[in-house]
Amino acid sequence: MRVSHSHRRITSTSIEAVAGNGLLNRRALLRRGAILVGGMTAGPLQSLTGAAAEPPGDAPLSEAPWSQEPGATIQPYEQPSRFERGVARTLANPNGQPGAQGARTPHHLLNGSITPNGLHFVVSWGGAPDIDPDKHRLVIHGLVKRPLVFTLDTLARYPMTTRVTFLECGGNSAPLFSPQPLQANLQALHGLASCAEWTGVKLSILLDEAGIDPTARWFIAEGADAPHLARSVPLKKGLDDAMVALYQNGERLMPANGYPMRLLLPGYEGNMNVKYLRRIKLVAEPAIGYWEGKIYAPLLPNGKAYQFYLLQEIKSFITQPSPGVNLKGPGFYEIAGIAYSGAGRITKVMVSADGGNSWAEAGLSKPVLSKAFTRFRMPWYWGGGPATLQSRAWDDVGNVQPTRAEFVAQRGELKAVPPVGAVLNQHFNAVTSWGVDGNGEVRHVYA
Amino acid sequence: MRVSHSHRRITSTSIEAVAGNGLLNRRALLRRGAILVGGMTAGPLQSLTGAAAEPPGDAPLSEAPWSQEPGATIQPYEQPSRFERGVARTLANPNGQPGAQGARTPHHLLNGSITPNGLHFVVSWGGAPDIDPDKHRLVIHGLVKRPLVFTLDTLARYPMTTRVTFLECGGNSAPLFSPQPLQANLQALHGLASCAEWTGVKLSILLDEAGIDPTARWFIAEGADAPHLARSVPLKKGLDDAMVALYQNGERLMPANGYPMRLLLPGYEGNMNVKYLRRIKLVAEPAIGYWEGKIYAPLLPNGKAYQFYLLQEIKSFITQPSPGVNLKGPGFYEIAGIAYSGAGRITKVMVSADGGNSWAEAGLSKPVLSKAFTRFRMPWYWGGGPATLQSRAWDDVGNVQPTRAEFVAQRGELKAVPPVGAVLNQHFNAVTSWGVDGNGEVRHVYA
Repeated sequence: MRVSHSHRRITSTSIEAVAGNGLLNRRALLRRGAILVGGMTAGPLQSLTGAAAEPPGDAPLSEAPWSQEPGATIQPYEQPSRFERGVARTLANPNGQPGAQGARTPHHLLNGSITPNGLHFVVSWGGAPDIDPDKHRLVIHGLVKRPLVFTLDTLARYPMTTRVTFLECGGNSAPLFSPQPLQANLQALHGLASCAEWTGVKLSILLDEAGIDPTARWFIAEGADAPHLARSVPLKKGLDDAMVALYQNGERLMPANGYPMRLLLPGYEGNMNVKYLRRIKLVAEPAIGYWEGKIYAPLLPNGKAYQFYLLQEIKSFITQPSPGVNLKGPGFYEIAGIAYSGAGRITKVMVSADGGNSWAEAGLSKPVLSKAFTRFRMPWYWGGGPATLQSRAWDDVGNVQPTRAEFVAQRGELKAVPPVGAVLNQHFNAVTSWGVDGNGEVRHVYA
Repeated sequence: MRVSHSHRRITSTSIEAVAGNGLLNRRALLRRGAILVGGMTAGPLQSLTGAAAEPPGDAPLSEAPWSQEPGATIQPYEQPSRFERGVARTLANPNGQPGAQGARTPHHLLNGSITPNGLHFVVSWGGAPDIDPDKHRLVIHGLVKRPLVFTLDTLARYPMTTRVTFLECGGNSAPLFSPQPLQANLQALHGLASCAEWTGVKLSILLDEAGIDPTARWFIAEGADAPHLARSVPLKKGLDDAMVALYQNGERLMPANGYPMRLLLPGYEGNMNVKYLRRIKLVAEPAIGYWEGKIYAPLLPNGKAYQFYLLQEIKSFITQPSPGVNLKGPGFYEIAGIAYSGAGRITKVMVSADGGNSWAEAGLSKPVLSKAFTRFRMPWYWGGGPATLQSRAWDDVGNVQPTRAEFVAQRGELKAVPPVGAVLNQHFNAVTSWGVDGNGEVRHVYA
């Protein structure tokens, strides 16, 4: 059996172009037969993607080793194939030296909208604590009528809620503040964001049971691990969609993602979703301590401080192709990516293949959920010339992802390129651009 | 700090009962404050769940070891906490002897609607093959105008689709054919079903590219592992929502779930979703060979054979409480469970706490997706007496989950109790009943 790698140009009549440099009409493509190049005719047949092969007819398929011998015994908890070992988080501090540790999600190697638990991003100030869930306690106190202590067993008896939401480090994408485009892959540039299905108890239920004092306006959430990360959160958020999360994609939270319980504040910056949650203290004013004053209130390049910004702004980026996920010869490709907004639901993603000169609307995988990763897809015929790929997102509360020029005009940019892997506590959500050269190689560019 | 375990009966005015034996109005409960027993009054406060505690005031929380020392270094691919080692699949054939291997999902220990990849159920005839993805090929041939061979790389260039769907072994729940209720837990009774987000290429696109001969009515899907499991599938399904799945919850398929690609037939019985997919052959009539004639056409207790049933029927079961997930004293609990239908979308789940004498409608976690697990929840005040818990599901195409009596009247029951862990190829989808005794212990009962 032989796989053909010859290619033929798309015929102008078969699929309608909808924007410059090869973007195709996805509705036409979804009509059965439309993807064919002459596939339903009597003429010679040719796949758009180079999938065409010598007809195997009824000859037996060649028998690989795995077709001739028993496989491995099924295990109680399964691991990915050994051929997928490269699908892993990259570590900013692989030896666990004192200080922050970052683990980035390899979005360029994933697809869909759920991030598997083994690959969910992590930013941690003290590593993954080894918490005995039976000994862990959550306290709700401060400006309440009746302080409460919860064990995992008592929490498990409350009404639970399940929702899909993304989490993102406030410093994700911060390398794009650099005056020159950092030559790194998607994982290094945008890997501090992930999306999972979370299940737990709505915080509002627990606060109501404690009885909220009328003077309370904020609460301080504190973690049980050694750094005792504490953040001040508006009480309004606690009474809205905040959750004490116990399950991540169906199973208990991962150790570095807050096991046995974390605060989940859908749409709010990652560090406020306090892991290993041990204390919720209701207060009248936010506490400005080490975490609020020093760590999570950085100076922007334009000299302003960024404090209590709370929301992760609307963002999108193309995952395939992307740096390192190069094109293998001209022909049909699907441009795929992720869009999300901490403020609501994605309503539209536009894609450009010519650096923003022309745009076409991408398809969105359903269901499109509020404050969750939304997978977008756009059919593209790459003719073999240079291309600049971009995506831009809109949400249902009126936010539009800014272009890089708009963003820099407002917030400034750094003086120098930061090192790859550096975590900067600065929100960046402008359009990302991938440059494709004539060999199909993809690089990070500013356009 | 001391956790109180005293309990007090629910006050009749605080929460409205909606069915017998303590089922509560979930809308009333979701109104803030309604879960309180006197929580907003000046009187003594008492948690419904026993969460009440001695007020810790502003005294420092006790410092556990994990609060005083650095945690573990973050790893490239994360594993669950060592305290969750019991959250594992149970294996029917742990030493991998020749013959079938089954791995069951521990639904009693999970929550939400996604099954994490490590815990997705498996039924396998030859273990998990060690397939080199670069050498794997998918052939589409038979009654087509132009046979095609696909590599993983060429498939990755096609338009992809993402959807959540459950998979279920046709023999899941078959122990409930027994004339006496098998004393086993939920994992043993219903653990051969799971739900994930799958991403891949719609089979219709590939079939259209191959060009379907007008005489084709079925296709044979064949796996690349040594057993070469092959099933005949109606072509109509191939042109509907069938997918060649490449990703499971965002990452590549797990080795025992078809890596590097499997057929996904949403709603169809598990074995037809052929793993390690290497061949799709279009044919005029189904092939009745070993798999169709012997393995997947078992005799029912009533003497009829069951062949090409295709769909997994509507089903639901309560996951918490369930056998082994016992009640810890009277008070408030949430009854939670899973409902699904191979025919469409769940529209309603009714729950009973008195063996079917009275029913109340459960809440459904949104979004409710077609042919996917739907998490249902029902608030319950357990007064400490005997109870019989049941759930019953409805879908949007008119299917109703049968009672066990209705089911047995139609399909019969086995003469004897099968051994725990036996896989029987017989569909069972009737109501499951859990009996709760005065000590809060939960057992499988027929009611």
